[in-house]
Order: sequence, then structure tokens, then C-alpha cells
Amino acid sequence: MTKADLFPKIDDKTAREEGDIFAPAFDEHGLLPVIVTSAETGEVLMFAYMNQDALARSIETGEAHYWSRSREALWRKGETSGNTQRIVEMRTDCDQDVLWLAVEMAGSGACCHTGRVSCFYRSVPISKEAGGKLKPANAERRFDPEAVYGHRSAAKGTLKSS
Amino acid sequence: MTKADLFPKIDDKTAREEGDIFAPAFDEHGLLPVIVTSAETGEVLMFAYMNQDALARSIETGEAHYWSRSREALWRKGETSGNTQRIVEMRTDCDQDVLWLAVEMAGSGACCHTGRVSCFYRSVPISKEAGGKLKPANAERRFDPEAVYGHRSAAKGTLKSS
Repeated sequence: MTKADLFPKIDDKTAREEGDIFAPAFDEHGLLPVIVTSAETGEVLMFAYMNQDALARSIETGEAHYWSRSREALWRKGETSGNTQRIVEMRTDCDQDVLWLAVEMAGSGACCHTGRVSCFYRSVPISKEAGGKLKPANAERRFDPEAVYGHRSAAKGTLKSS
Repeated sequence: MTKADLFPKIDDKTAREEGDIFAPAFDEHGLLPVIVTSAETGEVLMFAYMNQDALARSIETGEAHYWSRSREALWRKGETSGNTQRIVEMRTDCDQDVLWLAVEMAGSGACCHTGRVSCFYRSVPISKEAGGKLKPANAERRFDPEAVYGHRSAAKGTLKSS
């Protein structure tokens, strides 16, 4: 079985949007964008990508696996930090080219490689004069990235998330 | 002022992750992925893209504008359906290459072009035997897509969302 065979393909728009067959539409790089929220609070935790392998492992194990574009490798979330993600629910969107995962976090409960709960820890001001300053939002650190990943890795490393 | 000048650029990783300057990192197509949730329920409503123009208009008007990749045009969400989105909060992620919008919906409260509240109206079963059938989740229609967009547009059209 080739990688291309892990999931079915559906070309018909109505069948893809209204049917019950899971036929994820990977992009030209073989990737699918994934939105990850906390099953407990509903907060958006992170945004990542899955290839076919990562998606198949996530479904089979119930633990979130992604494709690291920077490392070009399968990435079991929390491998280094211990902050693994148990998938409570996985949903696909209308045209099946995006996934939404609601997860329970293990470990410190932090998702971001900077040590925060969520990667989205700064607000952008909405105003007629664009160009305002970012404001912290749920920006307290749950862990010290230097201690977890090594010296200055949060600032220097290539990992998007832990 | 050229389009490239609408927002500042930051190359330094620490400044981008820890600073208060909004410097969105658009991809090689000039786009930024955007996660949209309901400010009321926390549900993920849709996933779309913004270019610099769409982002600038969203910030200045407080109403969500996107870039339609299929139509290659600026897209004021709800222009046709009346289901516009007022931005309650906008957040950027650690490396400033993804946005999260929490919005209030006008009109019927439906976000998806199929008439559902959310584009994510089907669950993917998590199990050791992958390949299960999708299950409806919050899949009731709030509007009739044929009536809003014209005959069979939901199945035939190119709009990802209304």
C-alpha cells in the first residue's frame, strides 16, 4: 500500500460535502491544516499540519501526531516536553481540507514551545488606526522553555510548538 | 505605499515571539491562515486566508474580510448571505504566521456556505481501525443554500463559505 492509499479520494463536491466518507483532501505538499482547541476551555491552542502518516497515527492511537515542516519529520506532540494531546474529538470541514481537533493536554498543560498554554498569547488591537501594539492575553508561562528544550531553544530553535 | 508596506516585518525570532509589534508573516503566496471561532460558544466556525488588504480592512472596520483563493478577490464575509462577522478579538500566534478571530455573527448565524453554523459539521471516528464513517455534529442547516446563493450553488459553486 502506497502512502497515497491511506485515505480515499472523492472528486464529487456533493459527496465530499454531504457524505459520510472521510476523504481528506491533502494540499499540493501532501499536508492538511489542523486547528487544535482545548476540549476543556475551548481556547485555540495551536495550528499545525498533518500528512497522511500523521493523520493515520492520530486516528489509530487517539494521540495527536503532526508533520513538522521545519524538521521534515513525523512529530508526536509532547515527545520532548511531555505535553501530549489526547484527541477528544476530530472534525473535518465542508470540503474536507481542514481538520479541527479538540484535545486534552497532559503534563504542564502548555501547548506552545514558549511555555504558554496557547500559541495565541497576544491580542491585535482592532481600531481605525491600524498599527497598534500587541497586548498579552493568557500569556503566563507554564514551563521554562530553556529548561525543557535546552539553552535558548525557544528563541533559537526551529520547533513551532512543543 | 506599496502593499508590502502595510505591516512591518521582523526577522529576529525573539522580537517576533516576545515583542509587542504586530508583524504578520505572510506566506509565499502573500497569505495568512485564519482560524475563526464563535465568541459566544467557542466553536470553530471556519478556516480562511487573509492577504494584507483583507487584514488591514478587518482591523480598520472591525468586520472580517478574507481573501478568496477560488475567486482571487477580496471577500467581505457575509456580503451575499448577510451573515457578516464582527470581530470581538483578534490574536496572533507565537511566530505571527497565523491569526485567530473570535467573532459575533449577524444574520442567520450560519457561517458555512452549506447553511450550517460551522463548516465543521462532521466528526471523524477515532479508533484502532481507521476508516470509520463520518458522523453529523451540529449539522442542522440555518438557511437554504439554494435560496441564498441560487440553484445548486452549494454543491456546484466555488465559494468555500458564505
